[in-house]
Amino acid sequence: MTSQKASTMKDVAKQAGVALGTVSKVINGIPVSEKNRIKVENAIAALHYEVNTYARGLKTQKSNLVALIIPNTHNPFFASFADYIEGALYKRGMKLLLCCADGIPQKEIDYLNMAINNKVDGIIALTYSDVGKYITPGLPLVVFDRFFENQVIPRVASDNFAGGCLAIEKLLEFGCRHPVYIRFHSVFPGESDKRRDGYLHACKKYGLEPDFLDVVDCDEKLALMKEFLDRHKNPDGSLRFDGVFAHTDYHGYLFLRLLQQEGFCIPQDVQIIGFDGIRKFGNEDGELFVSSICQPLEQLSEKCVEILTAPNTQTVPSLTLLPVEYRYGGTTKEKDIAPA
Amino acid sequence: MTSQKASTMKDVAKQAGVALGTVSKVINGIPVSEKNRIKVENAIAALHYEVNTYARGLKTQKSNLVALIIPNTHNPFFASFADYIEGALYKRGMKLLLCCADGIPQKEIDYLNMAINNKVDGIIALTYSDVGKYITPGLPLVVFDRFFENQVIPRVASDNFAGGCLAIEKLLEFGCRHPVYIRFHSVFPGESDKRRDGYLHACKKYGLEPDFLDVVDCDEKLALMKEFLDRHKNPDGSLRFDGVFAHTDYHGYLFLRLLQQEGFCIPQDVQIIGFDGIRKFGNEDGELFVSSICQPLEQLSEKCVEILTAPNTQTVPSLTLLPVEYRYGGTTKEKDIAPA
Repeated sequence: MTSQKASTMKDVAKQAGVALGTVSKVINGIPVSEKNRIKVENAIAALHYEVNTYARGLKTQKSNLVALIIPNTHNPFFASFADYIEGALYKRGMKLLLCCADGIPQKEIDYLNMAINNKVDGIIALTYSDVGKYITPGLPLVVFDRFFENQVIPRVASDNFAGGCLAIEKLLEFGCRHPVYIRFHSVFPGESDKRRDGYLHACKKYGLEPDFLDVVDCDEKLALMKEFLDRHKNPDGSLRFDGVFAHTDYHGYLFLRLLQQEGFCIPQDVQIIGFDGIRKFGNEDGELFVSSICQPLEQLSEKCVEILTAPNTQTVPSLTLLPVEYRYGGTTKEKDIAPA
Repeated sequence: MTSQKASTMKDVAKQAGVALGTVSKVINGIPVSEKNRIKVENAIAALHYEVNTYARGLKTQKSNLVALIIPNTHNPFFASFADYIEGALYKRGMKLLLCCADGIPQKEIDYLNMAINNKVDGIIALTYSDVGKYITPGLPLVVFDRFFENQVIPRVASDNFAGGCLAIEKLLEFGCRHPVYIRFHSVFPGESDKRRDGYLHACKKYGLEPDFLDVVDCDEKLALMKEFLDRHKNPDGSLRFDGVFAHTDYHGYLFLRLLQQEGFCIPQDVQIIGFDGIRKFGNEDGELFVSSICQPLEQLSEKCVEILTAPNTQTVPSLTLLPVEYRYGGTTKEKDIAPA
């Protein structure tokens, strides 16, 4: 770096021959005429103006508010995420606006507009709605898990691929010969899709025939699981699988109950590993619902806030994956490891 | 009512011989000299100025933000409460600032100050800390469950007394002869203390000898439960009780696990009824952890917001109790009622 004086927004406005407000709008992703946008972008390029770094500094009216968009807080995973995000913001002197957007896309759009208009300093979003087209470049936004096409938005997630592999490796380690995979997924693409890739990778690596239920999330989960189960019954009533990797702890728990109702013993007949690491009653020392590949939720939350509040957005990774770990939750056979 | 023109804040200032700002401060609970406070209070009395009604109208700068102070959102009861409060605010065009104050009283004080300074329009608090002295008269505040001495703050809660009675009546109805009560409670007084009163009332009504564990919440819950259990064992290993009313679903679940570990069958040997109505994975259609006296959490949340945003605070009840109901959750014997 030379000690050459950095360009200011005023320099950009002068070079582009537009008003200062127009430059600000372009930087903050607020629509201007295409002619003006191109002028400003060219001026920014010519002057090596550091958009992202200074864009943050532009906000003389910092609100110290960050909005968290999640489907709801009834779900314990989302609820704990909200709690950790709130704590990470508090440490930085910031406050959390909670937006539970389940089924109300307009709510998400409202909050995105608040960020565009600087009424909040930024947004952390864990969303499964179709709001991609409302996301503008330069918007201070960090997304958890979800992938938006044609948008470079910093994303934070668990290492779902490694988690998918790990689930199968653990089932094999605990004596399973034929693990299956049960998945109900969102229609929107996200990092959690890689659990499936990890499962398929492990199948290939360990010479297993892939065998899974993989459908879009719906209200007929139990009926579909029952159908899958029946398809895997031998004439003598025994099962053609002895291990289940469930896409989430919730799916794992549903399958556990179904197997129990059908008279199977867990983990003697079938071992189950879920994904998420949800604890009963939300207690840190509480039991898991099922043995699970656990997401490091506190660290993921801290990472979201760290990235959103980074002074220089140019060095922020577009994707940050944190490692997962296996934890015993009563639905696996473990000889060597003491139950948590 | 006569059609006489209502006094304004200006009239109060004139009558008291103080600045308009001083009147505003007194009304909003911001400290002024005692001399001025008395002058303003006398003028308000003389002019029959309707403080509470108009205090709300004073806020020309409405933030449309309401802060929710709860211990955390890891706990599923608090988490669902936050979700319903957010929804009730959204319907009214308001947004939720989430404050998870567990163990950080300064956080609660910060938010109370935000309300005093009109940075938020009001506060809904479900808190078990010692912040009573920071609460000033006229503060737009609604509390859930908790009682603050010497403060008239609108409180919303479930009918805990009726719930305590109902738990015992249900246990008797399902065949119990000797129900006991297990309670770990906060050091701060609140409506939930009335579960105990309801239990004692039911004992008297049905001629039962009160028999309970009742201690301040602590980390030794399991050890204390074990001690209680051992004290109730006959020489042949059978138990001297056949029903348990647990102060919360969580306590009920802990006791369920302890009884199972000791080889007892639930509900055959012992029936358990908790309190709260927490559902696994937060799903509305999910199973309860134990049979339970369920709090109407959505209606309670709606009521908190309704009271906080009431245009005339003078007609707001100081205490609002909503009815609870019993729901089956696998830990009671039920012959006539289909499991939920």
